[in-house]
Parts: sequence; structure tokens; C-alpha cells
Amino acid sequence: MSRSIDLAVIPGDGIGQEVVAEGLKVLSAVLPQDVKLETTEYDFGARRYHATGETLTDEDLAALKGHDAILLGAIGDPSVPSGVLERGFLLKLRFAFDHHVNLRPSKLLPGVATPLAGEPEIDFVVVREGTEGPYTGNGGTIRKGTEHEVATEVSVNTAFGVERVVRDAFARAQARPRKKLALIHKNNVLTFAGHLWTDVFNRVAREFPEVTTEYMHVDAATIYLVTQPERFDVIVTDNLFGDIVTDLAAAVSGGIGVAASGNINPSGAYPSMFEPVHGSAPDIAGQGKADPTATVLSVALLLRHLGFEAEAARIDDAVAADLVERVALAARSTEEIGDALAARVAG
Amino acid sequence: MSRSIDLAVIPGDGIGQEVVAEGLKVLSAVLPQDVKLETTEYDFGARRYHATGETLTDEDLAALKGHDAILLGAIGDPSVPSGVLERGFLLKLRFAFDHHVNLRPSKLLPGVATPLAGEPEIDFVVVREGTEGPYTGNGGTIRKGTEHEVATEVSVNTAFGVERVVRDAFARAQARPRKKLALIHKNNVLTFAGHLWTDVFNRVAREFPEVTTEYMHVDAATIYLVTQPERFDVIVTDNLFGDIVTDLAAAVSGGIGVAASGNINPSGAYPSMFEPVHGSAPDIAGQGKADPTATVLSVALLLRHLGFEAEAARIDDAVAADLVERVALAARSTEEIGDALAARVAG
Ligand SMILES: CC(C)[C@H](C(=O)O)[C@@H](O)C(=O)O
Ligand SMILES: CC(C)[C@H](C(=O)O)[C@@H](O)C(=O)O
Repeated sequence: MSRSIDLAVIPGDGIGQEVVAEGLKVLSAVLPQDVKLETTEYDFGARRYHATGETLTDEDLAALKGHDAILLGAIGDPSVPSGVLERGFLLKLRFAFDHHVNLRPSKLLPGVATPLAGEPEIDFVVVREGTEGPYTGNGGTIRKGTEHEVATEVSVNTAFGVERVVRDAFARAQARPRKKLALIHKNNVLTFAGHLWTDVFNRVAREFPEVTTEYMHVDAATIYLVTQPERFDVIVTDNLFGDIVTDLAAAVSGGIGVAASGNINPSGAYPSMFEPVHGSAPDIAGQGKADPTATVLSVALLLRHLGFEAEAARIDDAVAADLVERVALAARSTEEIGDALAARVAG
Repeated sequence: MSRSIDLAVIPGDGIGQEVVAEGLKVLSAVLPQDVKLETTEYDFGARRYHATGETLTDEDLAALKGHDAILLGAIGDPSVPSGVLERGFLLKLRFAFDHHVNLRPSKLLPGVATPLAGEPEIDFVVVREGTEGPYTGNGGTIRKGTEHEVATEVSVNTAFGVERVVRDAFARAQARPRKKLALIHKNNVLTFAGHLWTDVFNRVAREFPEVTTEYMHVDAATIYLVTQPERFDVIVTDNLFGDIVTDLAAAVSGGIGVAASGNINPSGAYPSMFEPVHGSAPDIAGQGKADPTATVLSVALLLRHLGFEAEAARIDDAVAADLVERVALAARSTEEIGDALAARVAG
């Protein structure tokens, strides 16, 4: 285990600044004295785009590549046309650093409100493919702006890309007590990609005889996520379906205020990136209203990824304890929540 | 208004048979004496596929074309490889008859259980595009079954196809008391198709100044569907996003046991088709356990489409009354529910 962490920090836009500050506070508090934490802040997002027209240059990528990991707050602002920062920064980085395992745990913690009736037990993790599918940017437009316009989007799926993420998901399922893995796709309609996913899934399954598997269409999966979320243990799915089901999963398991994610390159060839699932929420930015919990939980994923398991667990426990108490507390500011969590992990 | 209905009936597979029988019972009961109802049953689905290898021939299409409308139960059976009946029958029919308006109302009726906490008011309708997007079957596979396999799916979107369904949705929003329309897409990632949808939506909006519009990414929409479903009035969206959000919408507004749909060709050039959102549910087929309500509500959509507004409203009222009483009743069979509804609409 490395006894130092060289971290790239990208606060980004809107509430990104506020939540990242608290994430770093908790990170500093949890690390043992002998671990050297070095952070380098990068100014990406709307401000930089307006000032320079740049979103993410080759030099930026080279600089980021040198770090052990990346902590991101949020990127996005209504002043920038839809798609520019998403494709030009967020997706560019995921693709450049081959972040093919997009990891999104969903756990409904005691004390946390859910829109679902009853007290469902929710504890699953989605392994979303991060570098293929309809996210590749393939496609185009002809006769733009005319009544004869045609726009296409091409979902690209490779055996290589599908197999590595499916294998990662099987390994995660194997390591969990329930050892269940669900493949979510739409193989009755998207038959080309669907058959590739299903074939690879069934083939890799043979190497993991202890893992119980099931297949589910994405439309049916949304039903199960609200009627039987306890059914899920590990889910593996395509980039776009993963985008959709993880937002729904976040909603039912306490909201995007507590949903963390990791954009992981398991090979270590490039640094992995950790970020809250929520966006930059410009409507509440700068008011100290944002919940930093999702960022703090992303820091835990980051620590776990770098081998600091005990420290990651301390953060998870601190968050769980804080959420239970939260019910009885008056609303706290972003900073107050960060302070409370930092005190817990240090204690 | 035509005083006769020439109906094609496709019971299909599994519970399709049972629920369609009850749908027809209610239809007969609700129609005034002077309306001549003629039905022709067609045997499509798994049985026919196994017997002849056929799913839907040119002759079948020619025969179906002659009817005023089509009532479908469900198509699909585990004995048939995934995709064969979906692409070979269901989607083939939607494309052949240019069913571009896929209409799916969601209304949480009193007495109906929802997985959501509280008593959300849910009353919206999704206008799902039915003939484009990733459903066109474009795409392919190379090096199938090898480690170098590549599979693509092409989403095809045209100004013509998007505009007609967007216009239909605006007209529906305009006709409703709240006059709200939400466009759901993923225009920050699927920028080619997303910009086409957004541009067309904004352009058509100018013709409907009374309609309040909003745009929402599909991932965020799943959150709102479980946290603020009362927010929605009319939704317009792409074929695949529509597939996903309508199953979620059905789940939160009483389940697929009560979710109806219409595959509509507004021009009347081809007959429109009405079907419950649920599938053939082979696990409970033949046991009289299936809830025919979704089929009965699909019959109401069918009647409304053919101009029998008063009769459609009688069915909606009968279903609402039956659902309220259902809470106090012991479980009833498919037929008992059908009988109860038929008695109500006749009475
Ligand atoms: C902002 C957007 C590009 C992104 C995605 O679609 O992946 C976001 O929704 C997410 O889930 O991280
Ligand atoms: C069965 C399948 C082809 C179909 C679809 O994806 O449209 C179904 O899910 C639906 O929603 O009607």
C-alpha cells in the first residue's frame, strides 16, 4: 500500500467547489499521520471554457495522468450549451483514461428518506460500462436544420470492452455475501449489441459457478428497482442503461445527495476518478446548502481503490452515523456536515 | 362517427388469451345496440412460429390492414429466442403500420397501490415515438462469437419523424387542463439526435404559446418520476427512452396490471393497435390469475380513437369504481374482474 496520495482535485462548477472542500476536509481527517497527502487543484469547467474556449487539452490530460487519483466535484453550467462540457470534458476524460468500470453503489442507510413505501432493504452496486455503447460520439447529422434532417447515434460494443466489464462485475459479485449478478440490457430489441452482451455474460458466468445470475430488460429493471429493490446485489450494464438505472437507484436509496461513484481503470494505467453522481446544481450554488455526503462517500471509494480499506470503512461508518442523527437535527450547512464527518473519522 | 367496428383481435401468447377475452366482453357490453361489432381473430405468436416458422407475413399485413383497429393481448414466450417475436411481429407491425404515436397514459386511481410513499397525484400521458430511434433494427455484428466481435446499434432520427410526434404531443398538452409538456432525451450526450429533438421541440413550441414546456435528461426524469410524479402532464420522448420511462411510470401508478397503451397512426392510413403494456406472463398463464384491467383500459383507448368518447369514458369510470372496491374484495379471477367491469359499463 502506498503511504502517500498524490491527488488531482477538480472542484468544477456550481456546488462542486463547496462539496469538494468538505470531501478534502474529511480525507485529511481520516488519513493517518504518516500518509503524505498532496493535492493539486485544476480549474476545469464553465469558467475556463468561457475564458479560453478550452475544456480539456492534451496538456491537461498529461498533467492529470501523473496523479494517483482524481477527485471531481461537478462540471456543468447553463451558460454553456448542452453537450459541450459533457462531451468535451467529462466524457473525454472517461474515454482518455479508459475508465471502463463506472462503479455506483446504492445503499439505503438507516435514517435516510426514500420515496418508496415500506422499508425496503437496498444494498447493491451497479457496474456501468464507461467507454462504449451510445456514448462513443459516433453518429452525425445531415441536412441540419431542414425538414429533411437525419441524425444518427451509433452504439458501439466490442467483445473486448464488454468482457472486461462483465468480468469485473462477476468478481465483485463473487466477493459479496449474496453472490448475485444481474445483466440489464434490451436484447429483445437491440439484438446486435444485446446478443453480444448476453453471449459474453453467459460465457464468463461459467468461470464463476458460485454466482447466481439473471437477465433483465432495462424497462422491466426500472419496475423492479421501485417494487423489489432488495432483489439486486450486483448489476452490470451498458453505458446508457447504466446512466439511467443509477439515477433511479440513487433516487430510491436516499437521493443523489448521498450517491457516490467511481470512474475506474482497474489496470492502473491511468488514474481513476471519483465524483458524486449529482451535478453542479447552479440553483443552490454558493449558498452552503449542498449536501457534501455524496462527495465524502466518493472519497471513501477513492481510498478503497488506492488500498486504504480501513480508512474507507471509517468514512462509511461516519456517514452512516451522521445520517441516523440527521433526522433529529435542524438543517445544517455544507460546511457543518463536513465538519461533523471530519470530527467522526478523526475521532 | 362510424356505427360499426371491424376489429382484428390478436390474443397472442400466455395470458394474452385470457385478458383479451375479458376486453372483448367489456367492449360488447359497452357498445350501444345499433353499433355493429365484428371481430376477426388472428393466431400470431409463439404457437404459429413453432408450427410454421412465420411471425407476420405480407398476407397477414394485408389482412390486418382492412380492419378499423387491432386489439392485442400479448406476444412472447420463453420457447422462442429473444428478439424473434419482438422484431418479427411486434416491431414489424408498428413499423409496417407506421404507428408513430405510442400513447401510454399513467393515472394513479384511488384504491390502487403504488410503491411510492405518500399519496402522490399521478395523471400524465407519455407520447412515445414508435417508428424511429434505436428501434429501427439498423446496425450489425462483425466477427460474431470471437474475441474481436463488434456490434453496433444505430439510432435513426428524422426531422419528419420527430416533428409529427412532437406536434401530436403539443396538441394533447394543449387539450389538457394543465397544458404542460416535457421533452425527455439525453441531449448532453446523444448530441446529434438530442439537438434534432430539442430544435424541433423548440420550433413547434412557438405554435403552442399556451403550453408550458420543459426539457429533462432521461436519467433525471427517472428521479422525478419517483420523487415528483405530479410534476408531469404530457411527456414526449424517443422510442427507447419512452420504453423505459413508461414501464417506470406504470410501476409507480399502479403497476403493469392497469397500464394501457395505443400504437396509433393518427392519419388513419393504417389501423391503430391497442394493447396492455404487460407481456405474456407465461408463469401465470392459463390460471385465471391475470388482471384484465390493462386490456380493458386499452379497449377504452381504442374506442376513444374510433370516436366513441362516451363509451370510452364509461369504461374508465367502471375501472375506477372497480379498483376502489377491489381493496375490500378477496382476490378475483380474470373472468370475475371482466364480468364485474362488463356489468358496470352495461348498467
Ligand atoms: C453529465 C453526463 C455526461 C453524465 C453521463 O451521462 O454519464 C452523468 O449523467 C453521469 O451519470 O455521470
Ligand atoms: C416487447 C418489446 C418489443 C416492447 C418494446 O420495447 O417496445 C415492449 O417493451 C413495449 O414497451 O411495448
